Amino acid sequence: MTLPSHGANPHILYEKLGISMPEQVIDFSENSYAGGPPDGVKENWLSWLTAASHYPDPNGVRLKKLIVEKHHVRENQILLGNGAAELMMTVLRLFRNREVGVIHPAFSEYERVIMANGAEAVPFYTSQENGWLPDSTDIHAFLSKPDRAIFICNPNNPTGVRIPERLLLDWLETAEKSGSTILLDEAFIDMAGEEFSLSDQTGNAALIIFRSMTKMYSLAGLRLGYLLAEEAVIQKVSDWVPHWNVNAIALLAGEEVLKDEEYTGKVREETRAERHRLQQALRDMGFQITQSEANYVLLQPPDPDHTENLWRSLLEHGLVLRHTWNYQQLDGQWLRAGIKTAEQNTKLLEALSTWVQSSSSEA
Amino acid sequence: MTLPSHGANPHILYEKLGISMPEQVIDFSENSYAGGPPDGVKENWLSWLTAASHYPDPNGVRLKKLIVEKHHVRENQILLGNGAAELMMTVLRLFRNREVGVIHPAFSEYERVIMANGAEAVPFYTSQENGWLPDSTDIHAFLSKPDRAIFICNPNNPTGVRIPERLLLDWLETAEKSGSTILLDEAFIDMAGEEFSLSDQTGNAALIIFRSMTKMYSLAGLRLGYLLAEEAVIQKVSDWVPHWNVNAIALLAGEEVLKDEEYTGKVREETRAERHRLQQALRDMGFQITQSEANYVLLQPPDPDHTENLWRSLLEHGLVLRHTWNYQQLDGQWLRAGIKTAEQNTKLLEALSTWVQSSSSEA
Repeated sequence: MTLPSHGANPHILYEKLGISMPEQVIDFSENSYAGGPPDGVKENWLSWLTAASHYPDPNGVRLKKLIVEKHHVRENQILLGNGAAELMMTVLRLFRNREVGVIHPAFSEYERVIMANGAEAVPFYTSQENGWLPDSTDIHAFLSKPDRAIFICNPNNPTGVRIPERLLLDWLETAEKSGSTILLDEAFIDMAGEEFSLSDQTGNAALIIFRSMTKMYSLAGLRLGYLLAEEAVIQKVSDWVPHWNVNAIALLAGEEVLKDEEYTGKVREETRAERHRLQQALRDMGFQITQSEANYVLLQPPDPDHTENLWRSLLEHGLVLRHTWNYQQLDGQWLRAGIKTAEQNTKLLEALSTWVQSSSSEA
Repeated sequence: MTLPSHGANPHILYEKLGISMPEQVIDFSENSYAGGPPDGVKENWLSWLTAASHYPDPNGVRLKKLIVEKHHVRENQILLGNGAAELMMTVLRLFRNREVGVIHPAFSEYERVIMANGAEAVPFYTSQENGWLPDSTDIHAFLSKPDRAIFICNPNNPTGVRIPERLLLDWLETAEKSGSTILLDEAFIDMAGEEFSLSDQTGNAALIIFRSMTKMYSLAGLRLGYLLAEEAVIQKVSDWVPHWNVNAIALLAGEEVLKDEEYTGKVREETRAERHRLQQALRDMGFQITQSEANYVLLQPPDPDHTENLWRSLLEHGLVLRHTWNYQQLDGQWLRAGIKTAEQNTKLLEALSTWVQSSSSEA
């Protein structure tokens, strides 16, 4: 059986598993903010119908200007994408026949875009014992040779663990000296705090940052992300990007959400509070958890061999968590749960508690 | 001065030309149906706001099922794209280091995606004298060698001229025998008539068809197109397509419009009537025109040297036509006008008539 390689779209999962999908489903496998987009998106939505009929600005000039203000970068250091996924597929064209590191567990798209572009994936591993952080010496050694690249997800998906800025800057220095590149996926950095972003290093030839606008702003359906990199990289990659790659609604929504100055702080606070509540309750029930700083938690039941049983039991009750069979180092023994609304998170905790009680009474 | 390489987005054009943009502008440079999308899109638009927050189905299964019904193809002969432009950029990866023919005048993206993918563009030319059709012997000769491909736009953009089906099938036979490929861009075929499509040849290893859903259905802002090709081609190209490449709103709109059985007939009738009216009036004023079967006409004033003067004069009056400086064989001496609503087309004819009178009184 081939399970879906990503979360979200729970109907596909239920179909593959042959479990009938309950009428009410809460999709914890999707990692975007559950409270919906900023009010401006909802208020303007109806007026955007007209934009659906006209070609989008192929350069996304208005949105770029807002990104310039947000990150204090230059317009020619930005490339807009049809989601960060498009930018990953396109950037990897720079690394044909080269070695590209992947730190496991990792977002499965990294290996997919590496292979699709004829590059070679070089695995690095993290584990619970070392706090899900890679061996820094290994990373330095890899980056000390020229023409290599490494994907770094910060905070990591699926562990949520954030790499200390000091480590990242040290690796960047090594890459810069040797002529290697750090492919820094900051899809969830705004959930941890914008102060942890390396966007202030934009212009460093060894750094390509991938940003997503769909997690924080709850816009996964519209597809919107951007690259921050030195101008020469942006120019080269632009050649491979299809004309009008970002749709008109994504552009308008992107402009709208970047104008909302209170939203991100509110989402971050709410997410942090719910994450702490979930993590505390999970620990109290005897679960293993990762020190996530993102809007999801990685959890393991007291007996890791029972993870699949737990996952299926939750699915039957309409609670969809992300399996981890296609994550190296996790091998199905953990589950990822996106942080949803307080009410939804409470339902998850109640279901987990019921499961723990029933599985311990069986033992 | 570098003019925009495509129509639409008139504000960019006015800015580049240093002409102040009138408050009321009619954009004849955009080639999509001016009457707006099918009612189902407008009626359901508000309900699609929810979909903006969730990952789209990466396989677009529901939309594919409707395309299967429309063209009587198999699901694995379809690849959905973020506009046909994405599919062109991606398909051309198959032709690295190969020769790819382009019949001029041609949509400028063909040469762009050829160059971006390290292929070599081989030009073919058409002219007014031979009815804007290529020399069939030349096409056969080119396709009789293996591993080549040729872009064929049917009906052609910008001339609107349709290539007879008999010619296309002959070329396809030559390509099939030699192991070459016809890249058939049918972006505007539904404006001429679905009966002229080569979709019934899907599965022929020598044929890759590009379809757009944004012209007929007035959805250019959403980005939606698809490939029809044999399964092996679809599989290979899919490897290079980013995950979730088609946004959720485009998928929903695509499903909605394919359910509307009356819309295409109505648009085709309306477009044909307006096209005939425009072409007749243009001839009466002494303009040269092409025998367009699409939703645009290509026109040339009685004195071709006055084309730029006409274009600028119309721009100043808020009527934006498509310049042809970046079309080989047209060299700025023609203008392309998308067919808009009857009222808008009448405004264009009135402005042209005024210009003709003033330019003849000056002469």
